[in-house]
Amino acid sequence: MKISSATIRRETTADTDLVDITRDVTIVVRKSGIKAGMVTVFIPGSTASITTIEYESGAVADLKAAIERMAPQDMHYEHNERWGDGNGYSHVRAALLGPSIAVPVHDSRPLLGTWQQIVLCDFDNRPRTREIVVQIMGQ
Amino acid sequence: MKISSATIRRETTADTDLVDITRDVTIVVRKSGIKAGMVTVFIPGSTASITTIEYESGAVADLKAAIERMAPQDMHYEHNERWGDGNGYSHVRAALLGPSIAVPVHDSRPLLGTWQQIVLCDFDNRPRTREIVVQIMGQ
Amino acid sequence: MKISSATIRRETTADTDLVDITRDVTIVVRKSGIKAGMVTVFIPGSTASITTIEYESGAVADLKAAIERMAPQDMHYEHNERWGDGNGYSHVRAALLGPSIAVPVHDSRPLLGTWQQIVLCDFDNRPRTREIVVQIMGQ
Repeated sequence: MKISSATIRRETTADTDLVDITRDVTIVVRKSGIKAGMVTVFIPGSTASITTIEYESGAVADLKAAIERMAPQDMHYEHNERWGDGNGYSHVRAALLGPSIAVPVHDSRPLLGTWQQIVLCDFDNRPRTREIVVQIMGQ
Repeated sequence: MKISSATIRRETTADTDLVDITRDVTIVVRKSGIKAGMVTVFIPGSTASITTIEYESGAVADLKAAIERMAPQDMHYEHNERWGDGNGYSHVRAALLGPSIAVPVHDSRPLLGTWQQIVLCDFDNRPRTREIVVQIMGQ
Repeated sequence: MKISSATIRRETTADTDLVDITRDVTIVVRKSGIKAGMVTVFIPGSTASITTIEYESGAVADLKAAIERMAPQDMHYEHNERWGDGNGYSHVRAALLGPSIAVPVHDSRPLLGTWQQIVLCDFDNRPRTREIVVQIMGQ
């Protein structure tokens, strides 16, 4: 059993940016030399999440619209009253979707479905440089 | 430390099928011979999720109703415009609930609450044969 | 590679209690002696969840408000019809947010963002004594 970790760096935009990081995660897994085990993808920070989706522009737009319904950008947020940074909606969205996913590793690859991609969801209201942590455990 | 994995196969229906897979996961954990560690339950694919709920018909119906409010089946989805398969709502639901959960293993059993069951949520709009991946790490 | 687990006990209130458990989790990780690996935080039970948020009173109130919109306390729930315990909304909320998160461990600490805290979300409609399971794997 061994453990390996790496960081993926991505620039994001200010407007609920959904970024496909599947290729980066796959490369990190292959480089780890771990053939069977588990990869955890985690985003440090309180205004972003990790999930999976079929990464095509229609489904991505649909997910953004659903998230906008759940925590609309233009409504009252207590966080904004206190801190004035206007990203109360970002914090709520990140807490609802969660900061991590775990994917089994088989034959040195994340065991995703054919149309299933790993996405970073950056909900913040300004561009960010994100460092996603990828940790692989196995043998 | 060792690692063990197995696949659970389940047939699902076309109408937001919530399936209790607790017994299957428990059997896989026991067969693995791992007494203490972690079990990850993961669904490959972009139209299904894994979560936990008290699996009784009332709570299951209530969860379905809440998901229908979050991503109604009968509204406009960009995905449907592009692909014509009518399951845009399924993709959104799956991304919101996420593809995996992790449960500690203690005494060769998943450490669930008494009324807490592991459920596959199949959101697709046609019957599917699902293969859920169960991976156990520990000793 | 080794594995270590511990339980955190917290008293909660009856009204969607969001409790910051970051300090407790951090202590458990440090005591485990594991320097690099993964910590999983899991809540046994079907009326509570684990997520991360910037734990300040504004963002906490905003998350509660969003969850109330998704699964309002005062609407019809099938679960309540059958069981009469009035916590149908609690079950739905817990299933939507999920029972666990995984956080990488680096330098004997959970690798959280500066403003990112781990929170227990207790959705039940009565005070509870919760036992959160913290499991660390690594070396």
